[in-house]
Amino acid sequence: MKISVNPLNGKSYSIPIKINDKTKIDSFINSNPSRPVVVVQGLGFVGAVMSLVCANAINGDYSVVGVDLPREDTYWKIKSINEGLFPVIASDPKINEFFNIVKERGNFFATSDEYAYSKADIIIVDINLDVAKNSDFYGELKNYDVSLDSFKKAMESIGKNCKEDVLILIETTVPPGTTQKVAKPIIEKCLMERGLSTKKLKLGHSYERVMPGPDYIDSIQNFYRVYAGINDNSANSVESFLKTIISTKKYPLTRLGNTNATEMAKVLENSYRAMNIAFAVEWSRFAEESGVNLYEVVDAIRMRPTHNNLMYPGIGVGGYCLTKDPLLASWSKKHLFKSKDGLMQSRKGVEINDKMPFFAFQFLKRELNLKTLDEKKVLLLGVSYRSNVGDTRYSPVEPFYDYLLKHGANVQLHDSFVKFWEEKKIDINTNLKEVLENITELDILIITTAHEEYKSSYYLNSFLSVRKDLFILDTVGMFSNLQINELNKIHTVRVVGRGDII
Amino acid sequence: MKISVNPLNGKSYSIPIKINDKTKIDSFINSNPSRPVVVVQGLGFVGAVMSLVCANAINGDYSVVGVDLPREDTYWKIKSINEGLFPVIASDPKINEFFNIVKERGNFFATSDEYAYSKADIIIVDINLDVAKNSDFYGELKNYDVSLDSFKKAMESIGKNCKEDVLILIETTVPPGTTQKVAKPIIEKCLMERGLSTKKLKLGHSYERVMPGPDYIDSIQNFYRVYAGINDNSANSVESFLKTIISTKKYPLTRLGNTNATEMAKVLENSYRAMNIAFAVEWSRFAEESGVNLYEVVDAIRMRPTHNNLMYPGIGVGGYCLTKDPLLASWSKKHLFKSKDGLMQSRKGVEINDKMPFFAFQFLKRELNLKTLDEKKVLLLGVSYRSNVGDTRYSPVEPFYDYLLKHGANVQLHDSFVKFWEEKKIDINTNLKEVLENITELDILIITTAHEEYKSSYYLNSFLSVRKDLFILDTVGMFSNLQINELNKIHTVRVVGRGDII
Repeated sequence: MKISVNPLNGKSYSIPIKINDKTKIDSFINSNPSRPVVVVQGLGFVGAVMSLVCANAINGDYSVVGVDLPREDTYWKIKSINEGLFPVIASDPKINEFFNIVKERGNFFATSDEYAYSKADIIIVDINLDVAKNSDFYGELKNYDVSLDSFKKAMESIGKNCKEDVLILIETTVPPGTTQKVAKPIIEKCLMERGLSTKKLKLGHSYERVMPGPDYIDSIQNFYRVYAGINDNSANSVESFLKTIISTKKYPLTRLGNTNATEMAKVLENSYRAMNIAFAVEWSRFAEESGVNLYEVVDAIRMRPTHNNLMYPGIGVGGYCLTKDPLLASWSKKHLFKSKDGLMQSRKGVEINDKMPFFAFQFLKRELNLKTLDEKKVLLLGVSYRSNVGDTRYSPVEPFYDYLLKHGANVQLHDSFVKFWEEKKIDINTNLKEVLENITELDILIITTAHEEYKSSYYLNSFLSVRKDLFILDTVGMFSNLQINELNKIHTVRVVGRGDII
Repeated sequence: MKISVNPLNGKSYSIPIKINDKTKIDSFINSNPSRPVVVVQGLGFVGAVMSLVCANAINGDYSVVGVDLPREDTYWKIKSINEGLFPVIASDPKINEFFNIVKERGNFFATSDEYAYSKADIIIVDINLDVAKNSDFYGELKNYDVSLDSFKKAMESIGKNCKEDVLILIETTVPPGTTQKVAKPIIEKCLMERGLSTKKLKLGHSYERVMPGPDYIDSIQNFYRVYAGINDNSANSVESFLKTIISTKKYPLTRLGNTNATEMAKVLENSYRAMNIAFAVEWSRFAEESGVNLYEVVDAIRMRPTHNNLMYPGIGVGGYCLTKDPLLASWSKKHLFKSKDGLMQSRKGVEINDKMPFFAFQFLKRELNLKTLDEKKVLLLGVSYRSNVGDTRYSPVEPFYDYLLKHGANVQLHDSFVKFWEEKKIDINTNLKEVLENITELDILIITTAHEEYKSSYYLNSFLSVRKDLFILDTVGMFSNLQINELNKIHTVRVVGRGDII
């Protein structure tokens, strides 16, 4: 029997062979039968919070059922929700606030039973669609593949259960063309096999712009949305629904011509960010060579409104989206639209960004003038890919950490927000004071995430003022000129993308 | 004897073999000896207007001498200025306003005599530094070269004449490293050869962000500036001077660590724009293939502040800066800083952009389903590279026009602002009504510049409403959805970067 463990409280659950929540689902829905039923497929970083937003709809009153698979890594979420513990930890206080209201109202239930789809008036698809990258140890992308298998299965599980007039809203980031060319035929086929009409089906695509962190809820509820449907009726239904959960008066909706367009908009957005970071990478190498502080240059340029999206150099790109979305688009161009080429520049952007951690590591070795880091004592500050958030998904700190280990360094870790580094299965002490107090020997201090705590920590400042001759590497441009000048009196500070300190 | 013709009034001037304006310069300066003397080297799109801004300094009272070479293409400017006709036509009414004030005050004189440098307290370098591109007919960039020869000569002409304590402010867009590695040694060598000290020299770099058009003057006087000097004294002097000509209270100055940094900032700015356009190119191909209106997608994404610099697809990139600055940077990395590679992505961006006109032409042929345009009657609306401005420097319309001719089309031209197409030596009728009235036969109408006149012209609307079966190509996304729907009733409209009309 398989076990799923809740990392939030250590509680473990046996996963039943046969899932049957029929009675519970019926009784949940019948407890308030006038409420339209929203089923959210997928309870990850998006789906879990989307469920909360729907259960707290601005202009609606829904019964919300969250569905996820009965797997080791997901089953605990269902139990956790139903036991009153929200499965996502976030710094946004609204998360708990919303969850408490929802518990009070009793309009959020979680299950692994596909039977839920049969009760849905609206189904929101928030599952993952991953890219399998084949890269070497140094981040060199050899090739990649996109498998639609699990996405297709998810569509089947809906099609085999849903009402014929359901509204299905796909929010998953998919290769452009997927709603039309993949989801629609599968669902229609299932409906036909069940002897139902395909004419009443409402199917659309709209993407969230969720940003885990202090504005988690607002990034769904109070932000612009783009949407489209496979026909006018679908688009109208999506629009009506979105108006019930989003502050559309302040953040007007944008309807695009077709679902290819909304799907493209999403991956284009993220490709744009990824490409802008790749652009900074090349210039950071040039800055290092020519004695220029690229952070200062970027700051000066960003004053222009036409250039305010310019990105800073750094240790790398992380997170779930920017590391894969350009590839989803490129894959779609080639495989769903049979184009001769993919999106070569966008792919190139991912390739460049994937090598940033190795660039940063090479910078370290070059500046230390060392071939090996054998027996060097290193402290890494930050493993999250983003400042002030504990999100380690595809964090660039992960390969950077691997390079340090591989080259013989003895590495200690701290992160203000990450108690357990999932990808590395390492417990992390989030108490900076304790970590610093326990360090007896140290050669190299590396800032790998620009958490606010590191910028202003009393403990870090005193630590640095009593130690001497540390080599300090700032991979994120966190230190000000003033701080660097101060630190350089007793230490040696180097910054990735900054050549002028030498 | 060589002749230089003023294109503004047809007046021609013999260029003297030996230039001697010594007496005139002396009397100009002595007419108000208390005024510090600013000499502007180069009277092109930047230097001419910079001279006006200095002569109308916000917090200063300068005698301004504009210097340019006694060549066929430049000598007329000197004559024109001294005869009271400003050599740059612009839609900015401030240009004439400023020139009239300056004439009244009598504090602007132009010359070809290098003697002017000997009188300067401040010398501003506003000469061109070009990239020689070797490209084929279809815009494929084979290789390119940067020659510093004329820049070096310009520095020599300063060094051989200037005072030892002059402030030299380089504004030219140069390969990063040029002020330190090229200008400084030349000027110091000249000073030493003249038995003067090099210690008092003040040398700096600061770049303008001039934008010819309705805000020409404001783009110098009321905008952010970045600057640096070869030492603190130089940087301080540059700062003091800039404060006299720029509204620095509203647009604070930014001092960078060294002149490499300011030089890099300038080419980075323009490379960023060029790269963002190259990014749009790739996606516009994808949009055409997948039936997506990329203009609509870009509009939807630009609502996000983090994505508001996203560019639209189109016919290509023009103008003096974006077409060459990424190459200047790449050249510098390799040749001035001896790096193994140049900036490969930035170069790639230029390559992609240079092929946009050919992409647009291929789109036309594909949509027309024609192998040749033999005997097709074509009207091009716009030859300027930028809307609402008559600037044809490196306009993408130029190669596009060549492709049309090469494929047998019979092409007529209109531009609201360009009377004479310098690069093609063609007179253009700027009166849209007349041009349309004289057209008896027409097969294809192409919008190549998004001038305001085309968007709302009564004559163009009536012309289109009485003609039938025109093929209309919009290369700049000028038409709204509504307009396209109307036009499609009697014509066939296609838009570059837009696949959803088919």
